Amino acid sequence: MPSVESPTASLYAQDDLRRDLLHRNALSMASPDSDRWPDLPENVEDYHDVYPLDIFGHSSKILTYSTSTYRATHSKTGEKCCLKRIHGFRQTITKYAPLIEAWKKINHPNIVQLKDIFITKAFNDSSLIFIYNYHPDSESLQTRHFNSHETLNGYNDPFSSDPNAPRPYSHTKNAILRHQHSNGLLSENTLWNYTIQLSGALRVIHGSGLALRSLCLNRVLVTGNVNSRARLRINCVAIMDILLNDMASPNIIAFQQEDMSDFGKLLLALACRSLIAVHQDNLLTSIDLMARSYSSDIRHLIRYLLGSQRRHITDLMPMIGARFYTQLDAVQNHSDNLETELSKEMENGRLLRLLVKLGSINERPEFNLDPAWSETGDRYMLKLFRDYLFHQVTEEGRPWLDMSHIVQTLNKLDSGSSDTICLYSRDEKTILVVSYQELKQCLEQSFSEVASAAATDDLVKAE
Amino acid sequence: MPSVESPTASLYAQDDLRRDLLHRNALSMASPDSDRWPDLPENVEDYHDVYPLDIFGHSSKILTYSTSTYRATHSKTGEKCCLKRIHGFRQTITKYAPLIEAWKKINHPNIVQLKDIFITKAFNDSSLIFIYNYHPDSESLQTRHFNSHETLNGYNDPFSSDPNAPRPYSHTKNAILRHQHSNGLLSENTLWNYTIQLSGALRVIHGSGLALRSLCLNRVLVTGNVNSRARLRINCVAIMDILLNDMASPNIIAFQQEDMSDFGKLLLALACRSLIAVHQDNLLTSIDLMARSYSSDIRHLIRYLLGSQRRHITDLMPMIGARFYTQLDAVQNHSDNLETELSKEMENGRLLRLLVKLGSINERPEFNLDPAWSETGDRYMLKLFRDYLFHQVTEEGRPWLDMSHIVQTLNKLDSGSSDTICLYSRDEKTILVVSYQELKQCLEQSFSEVASAAATDDLVKAE
Repeated sequence: MPSVESPTASLYAQDDLRRDLLHRNALSMASPDSDRWPDLPENVEDYHDVYPLDIFGHSSKILTYSTSTYRATHSKTGEKCCLKRIHGFRQTITKYAPLIEAWKKINHPNIVQLKDIFITKAFNDSSLIFIYNYHPDSESLQTRHFNSHETLNGYNDPFSSDPNAPRPYSHTKNAILRHQHSNGLLSENTLWNYTIQLSGALRVIHGSGLALRSLCLNRVLVTGNVNSRARLRINCVAIMDILLNDMASPNIIAFQQEDMSDFGKLLLALACRSLIAVHQDNLLTSIDLMARSYSSDIRHLIRYLLGSQRRHITDLMPMIGARFYTQLDAVQNHSDNLETELSKEMENGRLLRLLVKLGSINERPEFNLDPAWSETGDRYMLKLFRDYLFHQVTEEGRPWLDMSHIVQTLNKLDSGSSDTICLYSRDEKTILVVSYQELKQCLEQSFSEVASAAATDDLVKAE
Repeated sequence: MPSVESPTASLYAQDDLRRDLLHRNALSMASPDSDRWPDLPENVEDYHDVYPLDIFGHSSKILTYSTSTYRATHSKTGEKCCLKRIHGFRQTITKYAPLIEAWKKINHPNIVQLKDIFITKAFNDSSLIFIYNYHPDSESLQTRHFNSHETLNGYNDPFSSDPNAPRPYSHTKNAILRHQHSNGLLSENTLWNYTIQLSGALRVIHGSGLALRSLCLNRVLVTGNVNSRARLRINCVAIMDILLNDMASPNIIAFQQEDMSDFGKLLLALACRSLIAVHQDNLLTSIDLMARSYSSDIRHLIRYLLGSQRRHITDLMPMIGARFYTQLDAVQNHSDNLETELSKEMENGRLLRLLVKLGSINERPEFNLDPAWSETGDRYMLKLFRDYLFHQVTEEGRPWLDMSHIVQTLNKLDSGSSDTICLYSRDEKTILVVSYQELKQCLEQSFSEVASAAATDDLVKAE
């Protein structure tokens, strides 16, 4: 029989997009090895399945507080979340209620969404817990572009204290292959990509009368390995506001100006690939050094951010200019690719349900003695169809395995095509000529018989 | 047995995104009813499966030429294309080679990609054929926002001659529900969304030294029913260049200026929901009338486009301003939704392949007499596993159908979980306690036996 390759080849999501997403799914389903962490609580308030994301055991610190990061599952919604724990927090947080509400309202594609904040005794101390959206297979800008081994489960601690630790070769290699010029520098396009995403986030934060406080490389998550798809998300919002405990008479304007300077330093550090470059004494020299590899446009933008005048995020827009279009094109193209892959993959769900129906009928034992459910008539046809689908042999009697045959056959069954096929009995003495339309009817009829036998009080969910 | 709903509920793409994509797939697979169009050629050069997209039989015209639109499949790539035919075209197109190359190079998310241009005798005349990407379930801005019944197969003829024909109620209703204020006007956000997308396309076209020539509501395709997801694509590029036959000494600057005016008129017609509004005498009055419903920003932009000064697409950027951020947020959010749905759906592909493997092994007849392939050992376990998967019964002996049981069980099989299950022989005299890990090994082993029996020279493609 001929082998048709294209229908199968196009049926599955191609390339590394597919690999990335499967990897993310695998990471978010990885189960805790409870022996290794005997002290983990079973539940933290409404969350269960608590799994540490910083298992290398760094005692991360924010100000004077130890922190830990966990993945957890919300008991009601089943949603996976990232749980950030501040150890030994002995204050109340009632006075922060309006601030917390303001942060929770901020829903932006470049900000890790804050879901909840509460205090718990689940860890046998008084811990302050921040619940965020979980983005598996993310790392910080610090980890991606500087050296660090502090990734676990594709997730790194945004407050890691050891930015210069060695990084596995594979990471370094990927970074070089995908994000950097051969000289180790980020491409100018990558810098603009980051600039646009972070400025979009800051615009919304500042527009809501909030400030980020200490924006830095460790607090920006990046997801996606290919540059054009790298998505940045500002992480750990609201933590500093509460830990600094200085919001009683907040000077939000001054805090926002600090954000602008921090933003400038972050971009400069990335451009120079050096943390020393952004020490106060080196700033001007570093911007000058950038001229070797980057346009005056991006230097102008960084110089503006580091300036001493009153700065505003909207002033960046004319500096970004037509690069907005480039960014939009890239995101729209990515979106188109996702849509194409999704529409292919959705067909799999349809075929899966079809095979499940067939599996629920074929060789079903409990009706063996019921003459109405003997494997004659509808069921017999479906049994022969199953053989046609899965058990065909070549002329030489060898098994014939062809995924595209299975996919095409199931598609025709699902659409009830008027095409006919020949079904052979196993002794090859009987040949039935039957259309997919008839087979579809057999399947619907037989399945609804099983279903109605099942459904006296149980919910039938295979439909 | 308990019913667990959530794993299945989250397994399939939700909401109308899913419906839209399935509808698009169905449209692009709809087969030609060859009896209705006996005159259709079997092949048009490298394309087969030619299917008319304008079956209402309007004699569409461009200038003096009759035109028709078809969907066709490229014989080598299997790709579906949109084929635009200009009837009775009696010139050669060799002189347009550089122009055609320039258009083919333009790859932009807001432009329907031109793939090829050729002349064919397949329709028993000399027809000029333009091959474009096919975007199923699209309609023109004319059809969406004004009245027209000329949609077929979700695709309308961009050169329809009867823009005021009545439109089915369902269309009108959708439009009102999803795109318009209750007063029938488009929301200002929709106008900006359209402005940004079309300006992005024009920017690239003008930047390549080309002009669109006669941009109008009929030549912009819109895909996606929800406003925030409405994607515009400029259609039918390059046709006017060739049919007007005036590119010998092209005044490209003048043509580009016409594009700008056409762009302004298109936006004004949408804002006023009236084609009369853009008659030359009414332009200024129409812009004034817009003030009732729209901001001065959008009126300013339209006034600029309709001005008599030399206009440039980049001058629109400051007028768009921070709306670039809004647009980016919307596209990124849509992209995130797609990614979430895709990662759910990809799991279906994995489970489908697993069921296909199982189906290729269970009850396989041709080895029945081969003692090494008797249904003992590995195969027997897989047979009992199949019963465990599909044929369980409740305590009262009724079939137990639960999709989430099947999904969870297959997931554990795929991951080779160390969890164990009890498999009962059909006479219930034997109970096997077996881990998913062992079952996975049985499956791999048995499948590789079938595969190696199959693979003497055939390609094994079920892997």
